[in-house]
Amino acid sequence: MPDYRNDPTLPVPTFPGSHLVLDDAYVFVSGLTAADIQGGDTVLGDIAEETRWVMRRLGHMLASVDCGFGDVVRADVHLADLEEIEDMDAAYAEFFTADRYPARTCTESPRLCGGSRVEITLLARRP
Amino acid sequence: MPDYRNDPTLPVPTFPGSHLVLDDAYVFVSGLTAADIQGGDTVLGDIAEETRWVMRRLGHMLASVDCGFGDVVRADVHLADLEEIEDMDAAYAEFFTADRYPARTCTESPRLCGGSRVEITLLARRP
Amino acid sequence: MPDYRNDPTLPVPTFPGSHLVLDDAYVFVSGLTAADIQGGDTVLGDIAEETRWVMRRLGHMLASVDCGFGDVVRADVHLADLEEIEDMDAAYAEFFTADRYPARTCTESPRLCGGSRVEITLLARRP
Repeated sequence: MPDYRNDPTLPVPTFPGSHLVLDDAYVFVSGLTAADIQGGDTVLGDIAEETRWVMRRLGHMLASVDCGFGDVVRADVHLADLEEIEDMDAAYAEFFTADRYPARTCTESPRLCGGSRVEITLLARRP
Repeated sequence: MPDYRNDPTLPVPTFPGSHLVLDDAYVFVSGLTAADIQGGDTVLGDIAEETRWVMRRLGHMLASVDCGFGDVVRADVHLADLEEIEDMDAAYAEFFTADRYPARTCTESPRLCGGSRVEITLLARRP
Repeated sequence: MPDYRNDPTLPVPTFPGSHLVLDDAYVFVSGLTAADIQGGDTVLGDIAEETRWVMRRLGHMLASVDCGFGDVVRADVHLADLEEIEDMDAAYAEFFTADRYPARTCTESPRLCGGSRVEITLLARRP
């Protein structure tokens, strides 16, 4: 039976979703935007900073179930403005080892929750 | 080899897709909108009613392969208008047990098939 | 540990992603548009030709890891203009055996990379 979890060190989701769902093989992570988990350090408006902020939180969620970016097999990225893809790409790539990038899809979604610029959804294989 | 199925009690898809694809571990469900399976009871235009209509049909599809909402690990939701997320969320949440919500991604997609307000795609773990 | 690969006969991705990620059960394929792998034969602007071009390259990627369209369990299709869905559907369907269509989601994403009309992301079950 799937195991539905929230990272206990982060605020609970404001939408009907779990941070993470685990089965014996995979970790399904909810799509995250900078607006989803607000705090004193949230940066909204700059695509590179938003991307890093989201990726750091996603890394924290993965670590809470003993996974890391090296286990991610697929990423779905939604951008509010596709023109920002190069800046997003550069920030996103900082979190992976070159030659071990997940399969990726990146599309434009004109409005994202809370006025965010980027939403990232990950799927990880459990080690 | 994957098993490609349609729920025999529902109209066959009008697009080149199967209602459900099964392997030994998962059930992959096609994205569903209220416009995809029209009938006398289809409600188009009200986001809460559309969401309930779609979720009831998805529940029916899952039941046809001995699964239920408690097996869903991930949901991808597309809204024609992101402003309607709160009403969608409230209707969507009725179908799950609190604390057992699937991982979820919700984005805006300006136009959906047949003028629908919401499309929902599910992935379930076979029990 | 997942295996991150590029199809050696195609240009390397211009974004931080791998063509394919494999584990013991699945092949995760990156979303592909006609603009992603340009060459003398790239056709941009006609939805049916773009769809066939993308599907041929995806088929080539799948074949590089001993898979084919008959192993695909899910497809996510993004269209720049949802009005083009019927022409996309007709071209897309040419690549599958009737009654063995993957589960599918198709939504509109107003802008796609490089001005493409369609992006297709596949998930295949390893045979």
